[in-house]
Amino acid sequence: VRRLRLGMVGGGQGALIGTVHRMAARLDDRYELVAGALSSDAARAHASAAALYIAPDRSYDDFRSMARAEAGRLDVVSIVTPNHVHAAAAMAFLDAGIHVMCDKPLTHTLEAAEELAASVARSGCLFGLTHNYTGYPMVRQAREMVAAGALGAVRVVQVEYSQGWLATNLEASGQKQAAWRTDPARSGAGGALGDIGTHAFNLAEFVTGLRVERLAADLSSFVAGRRVDDNAHILLRFAGGAKGMLFASQVAVGCDNALKLRIFGEKGSLTWQQEGPETLTWGRLGEAPTMLTRGGPGLGDAAAHATRLPGGHPEGYLEGFAQIYSDMAEQISARIEGRVADPRCLLVPGIAEGLRGMRFIAGAVASSGADAAWVSLG
Amino acid sequence: VRRLRLGMVGGGQGALIGTVHRMAARLDDRYELVAGALSSDAARAHASAAALYIAPDRSYDDFRSMARAEAGRLDVVSIVTPNHVHAAAAMAFLDAGIHVMCDKPLTHTLEAAEELAASVARSGCLFGLTHNYTGYPMVRQAREMVAAGALGAVRVVQVEYSQGWLATNLEASGQKQAAWRTDPARSGAGGALGDIGTHAFNLAEFVTGLRVERLAADLSSFVAGRRVDDNAHILLRFAGGAKGMLFASQVAVGCDNALKLRIFGEKGSLTWQQEGPETLTWGRLGEAPTMLTRGGPGLGDAAAHATRLPGGHPEGYLEGFAQIYSDMAEQISARIEGRVADPRCLLVPGIAEGLRGMRFIAGAVASSGADAAWVSLG
Amino acid sequence: VRRLRLGMVGGGQGALIGTVHRMAARLDDRYELVAGALSSDAARAHASAAALYIAPDRSYDDFRSMARAEAGRLDVVSIVTPNHVHAAAAMAFLDAGIHVMCDKPLTHTLEAAEELAASVARSGCLFGLTHNYTGYPMVRQAREMVAAGALGAVRVVQVEYSQGWLATNLEASGQKQAAWRTDPARSGAGGALGDIGTHAFNLAEFVTGLRVERLAADLSSFVAGRRVDDNAHILLRFAGGAKGMLFASQVAVGCDNALKLRIFGEKGSLTWQQEGPETLTWGRLGEAPTMLTRGGPGLGDAAAHATRLPGGHPEGYLEGFAQIYSDMAEQISARIEGRVADPRCLLVPGIAEGLRGMRFIAGAVASSGADAAWVSLG
Amino acid sequence: VRRLRLGMVGGGQGALIGTVHRMAARLDDRYELVAGALSSDAARAHASAAALYIAPDRSYDDFRSMARAEAGRLDVVSIVTPNHVHAAAAMAFLDAGIHVMCDKPLTHTLEAAEELAASVARSGCLFGLTHNYTGYPMVRQAREMVAAGALGAVRVVQVEYSQGWLATNLEASGQKQAAWRTDPARSGAGGALGDIGTHAFNLAEFVTGLRVERLAADLSSFVAGRRVDDNAHILLRFAGGAKGMLFASQVAVGCDNALKLRIFGEKGSLTWQQEGPETLTWGRLGEAPTMLTRGGPGLGDAAAHATRLPGGHPEGYLEGFAQIYSDMAEQISARIEGRVADPRCLLVPGIAEGLRGMRFIAGAVASSGADAAWVSLG
Repeated sequence: VRRLRLGMVGGGQGALIGTVHRMAARLDDRYELVAGALSSDAARAHASAAALYIAPDRSYDDFRSMARAEAGRLDVVSIVTPNHVHAAAAMAFLDAGIHVMCDKPLTHTLEAAEELAASVARSGCLFGLTHNYTGYPMVRQAREMVAAGALGAVRVVQVEYSQGWLATNLEASGQKQAAWRTDPARSGAGGALGDIGTHAFNLAEFVTGLRVERLAADLSSFVAGRRVDDNAHILLRFAGGAKGMLFASQVAVGCDNALKLRIFGEKGSLTWQQEGPETLTWGRLGEAPTMLTRGGPGLGDAAAHATRLPGGHPEGYLEGFAQIYSDMAEQISARIEGRVADPRCLLVPGIAEGLRGMRFIAGAVASSGADAAWVSLG
Repeated sequence: VRRLRLGMVGGGQGALIGTVHRMAARLDDRYELVAGALSSDAARAHASAAALYIAPDRSYDDFRSMARAEAGRLDVVSIVTPNHVHAAAAMAFLDAGIHVMCDKPLTHTLEAAEELAASVARSGCLFGLTHNYTGYPMVRQAREMVAAGALGAVRVVQVEYSQGWLATNLEASGQKQAAWRTDPARSGAGGALGDIGTHAFNLAEFVTGLRVERLAADLSSFVAGRRVDDNAHILLRFAGGAKGMLFASQVAVGCDNALKLRIFGEKGSLTWQQEGPETLTWGRLGEAPTMLTRGGPGLGDAAAHATRLPGGHPEGYLEGFAQIYSDMAEQISARIEGRVADPRCLLVPGIAEGLRGMRFIAGAVASSGADAAWVSLG
Repeated sequence: VRRLRLGMVGGGQGALIGTVHRMAARLDDRYELVAGALSSDAARAHASAAALYIAPDRSYDDFRSMARAEAGRLDVVSIVTPNHVHAAAAMAFLDAGIHVMCDKPLTHTLEAAEELAASVARSGCLFGLTHNYTGYPMVRQAREMVAAGALGAVRVVQVEYSQGWLATNLEASGQKQAAWRTDPARSGAGGALGDIGTHAFNLAEFVTGLRVERLAADLSSFVAGRRVDDNAHILLRFAGGAKGMLFASQVAVGCDNALKLRIFGEKGSLTWQQEGPETLTWGRLGEAPTMLTRGGPGLGDAAAHATRLPGGHPEGYLEGFAQIYSDMAEQISARIEGRVADPRCLLVPGIAEGLRGMRFIAGAVASSGADAAWVSLG
Repeated sequence: VRRLRLGMVGGGQGALIGTVHRMAARLDDRYELVAGALSSDAARAHASAAALYIAPDRSYDDFRSMARAEAGRLDVVSIVTPNHVHAAAAMAFLDAGIHVMCDKPLTHTLEAAEELAASVARSGCLFGLTHNYTGYPMVRQAREMVAAGALGAVRVVQVEYSQGWLATNLEASGQKQAAWRTDPARSGAGGALGDIGTHAFNLAEFVTGLRVERLAADLSSFVAGRRVDDNAHILLRFAGGAKGMLFASQVAVGCDNALKLRIFGEKGSLTWQQEGPETLTWGRLGEAPTMLTRGGPGLGDAAAHATRLPGGHPEGYLEGFAQIYSDMAEQISARIEGRVADPRCLLVPGIAEGLRGMRFIAGAVASSGADAAWVSLG
């Protein structure tokens, strides 16, 4: 038994999501961070590496030299750069036979996404995408319940993801997170759409097991001078007849990270909110609603698999994120050891979900450009 | 000082909303119920009247004979029948010079609504429409805050009204409330759209002070055999550039009467929920959110006017409904006494709001019929 | 069928609780207010009467002349004065053969309470005490569930009633509600203890069906110059072995009217909060908790009896208060008509509960005076 | 820069709290687990060590041999055994000049606690006690606000910790966690009192900065055959005049881990709940209440120091626990490096708080034995 050897691209000092990936990777102790190209600024890259106990000779100036040098010495690499770097970086490691964990959305353009997908297929490597909200125990529980028919046929899916941090022209101040997310060259065609709308979209498909067939989108850029959307209003039609709404906003003053999913079926409903993630409210036709809680009675295997602490000891964002990493670790370890992976670990979103997300972005942009005409997602 | 003399059309034994209107009229003791045509079934009408202490000679078999006989003896009449009777009944009393309080939606067709509007104008009488949710103190507070600029320019309006009681084919069982609401001849072209969607639409316009210019609607009838919509997904565009979503559903299993409004502006947001109506959450740019509560610190005149009890002594649905009645009583009394009414009592929705609601229904039906094409509401 | 003829003592202009009693009496239309001695100030009494449509010749300067004059003309009188007047006023009407509804606590001294109890017994009249929180549907539901054994044997009872309105020396400002409540001559020996502690005590005994046998109290007067307690910390021991805590405070800044009851038994628990009174949370051994809601599935007869509106249409304080009045109306009507009253209407707190409350006050004061020694309540 | 070398006593396979300590130690990557005496069962100890990547020659059969062998090779050891082993184990490492992190309560007897305190003093080593709830950012925020006078003088402190997992005779089933916690030989004289009551007590003193001078306790063992208390009702008197109540229960069916603290001062109040730890409700005299949230506006340095993620990305139990470890890491590193530690890292509870907790247990047991007589805590 050994820890997997992990590298990282991006995530140097001052970056948020790289820190998150590292804490997530550490939580269940299945990884050891041993190499990195942590910043496009070489000095920052090496200073960051030193602070993370990475040996100087495994701190690189750029991901290409890292991929070359680390072939055979890394099990997996995490790509935590802005979107426009994802594809090139991931492909460099896939070509070197190194499994990849990549932040979302998959890439900045649908074309790059398709190229990456081909690369994944060619490489035979594992590819995980950190749609981290799928790692929450109560999200897994919801998915299991829908699949088991607890709601009957799904009719209505309401999903929303609202934040308020871009309610002003923050990018003009030079704030780093805002700057690249509102720059189409680095972020892609979607603003709120890509950054958080893809999470909402993924969550809706993940939990319901249904595919969105068509959408009609009304995108807005409320903040003067903003180059990407900061608010998305989208109608959804799912295969099989369910309908839905998706609301994603980064100008929702007063909201922090309010991802919320509601699913209404013939005989039941489920409500889950990321900011209070330990509870899943189960509405039942003709019966009083039940509050399912992580670690509590009435849960199935999927939630149990993703649970570390007893009920009432709040788990949160990092634990859900860590679940993605730990499930991926099992998949990689099984591959290394030549055995079948624990089937509970196979829910990690991957290249297919990444492509879905890119089609969602492209479809919504196209729909909005055509005054909210219906667009098929294929 | 005397109580206003109130008559009622509809609301006989077994009816729900008639009981609500009577309790609302009684709460502040401004009305005295003295006459009625309480049911289209004469026996039930008279039995109902007796139980309500109405003198036998003022209990009528039909609204027309009542309007004729009560001219000069009634100050105001409440119309609490199914929708398709509203217009004819209201016009009979308007013709007799009697003020009218009418349940919503205004009528069953846009044509009838316009005919009624002409009748109101001709009569010179007062006409109130019980979009009762506008009577809640914290709704009035929200309206006052938006008008005072507390949010800055409004950007996004999310409104929803979800119920679950029609998740099955309840109308097939003969349940009375379900039967007429799902019968286009009695309810009109809208199902959930008319019954609750109009409340949501009215609330959004009432609080924001903005008019919906265009909408794109995707209506569904999820329950097999249902003749009207039971779920409405609608995109909204407001005059001035705000955008919104409206969700109305009567198949939302697990929901009782979940009317919820969120308004996001440039520098603040407000959230109000009918099922917890005493609180208004105020999100503020760069500051921690504040919980405004009825009867608590930080409220303005509009809320104070609509408040009966100290904070922490929950007021609810009936008090909000009563506010509509009591404000209307002031308007009627002022008319009778030849004085100017208290300006705080002028917020009662009326014929204009009723027409807006009917255009909303017609517009949404037309849009949905054209695959969610944008439709102007004029 | 006729409305009961109601008189009122106290409750003139500017009084809060009198208004509440009148709204409560009106809500279900079983009473007609026809006489009053509404204030000890004659001018205010008559002006108040006129505003309430009481005939001038039935507006009295004092309760004694009213009781004499109204014998045979009133069915029932409501006593809504400060505590020190309750006993004398109630006895005057009992002597006149008029049923009594009295505000809580029963009186200002245990001696007066016992004298009043003797008077009630002698008169043969009905006597209701407005421990109004027992009128809430979900409180009735809780009582029914405990009685039916849904929790198994009760082990722990946690009850609290916290308000913040007396956190400063409000009485020094002349505020009327504060002035008499902090004046031992008018309020009695208990401050927070009598004003709200008795509600908490009553609620605990009402719902559990258990009697508090002993208590140990630590009373405080945190506000400088205050002549009565404004905070009560009390340990409870119930007959049968259950134990509990009672917390009553009027210096709890940030609290409005936070009455909360939790009951833990061998196999279940119940939690109810007055500020969100529509929900009863049912914890169950080995099962996920259930949210019982007024008007929703899973409730029994007691809640149904006390329900006016469908679920999701919030009922509140006034409806609970009205339930006390309406149940009392049924008792009085049955007495008048010589029939047996509907058994669902027999839960109105009366003289026995009033005496319990006075013993609670006296016991807590005695215990606190003896440094929180245990005191028996008999 | 290097990770601290960490050893562990207890926490072998099947143990809960050891896993928690390890995840907490890992989260911020300041520790490396290199040695252990993980179980009193040698086979389990070695198997556990292997699974944790501990070298076989640093896995020990008992803590004494470990302390001898690891002197100079470990920076710090975590003691995560049942209570009765804490003192002996800690002293072995202190004697070897190794800093100690110890689970709570400090020991099983007051005598052992005092012996341990002497040992700590003698050794000059650092000693941290995992009253982990003090590591939550919003708890730190509360403490900072009270100290800064945001509430004015504190009047009332209500603290409770309720769980339901011992509502039945679980220890009879052989469940390991229940077995030692209900065995006075291993747990000490307190049951719920020691296991969770000490957390509540510590939290109250930590946040208010006030010392409990006297208490009056009513302890119960509701479950037949139980050898320790499973419910504690305690009155508190603080130095300076504040009063409080402490409720700790492990028979509170329906509760998971409901630690809640409310502090009421002259001009403000604070409410914090462990099961929703990201929010701190701030009641303010004459103003609407504010919801302070982790990562949100209006917080001070203490909360910022303990925060890893942006607001709305829920942190929970492990992050709070990790804060204790990371603050201790800074203290140890500063000691090693001969520099002054970051003052924000000095809030870790230590031997003094451990002694307070043991006096609390002993005092409550004595008080309850004397029928809830007041006992001084010195």
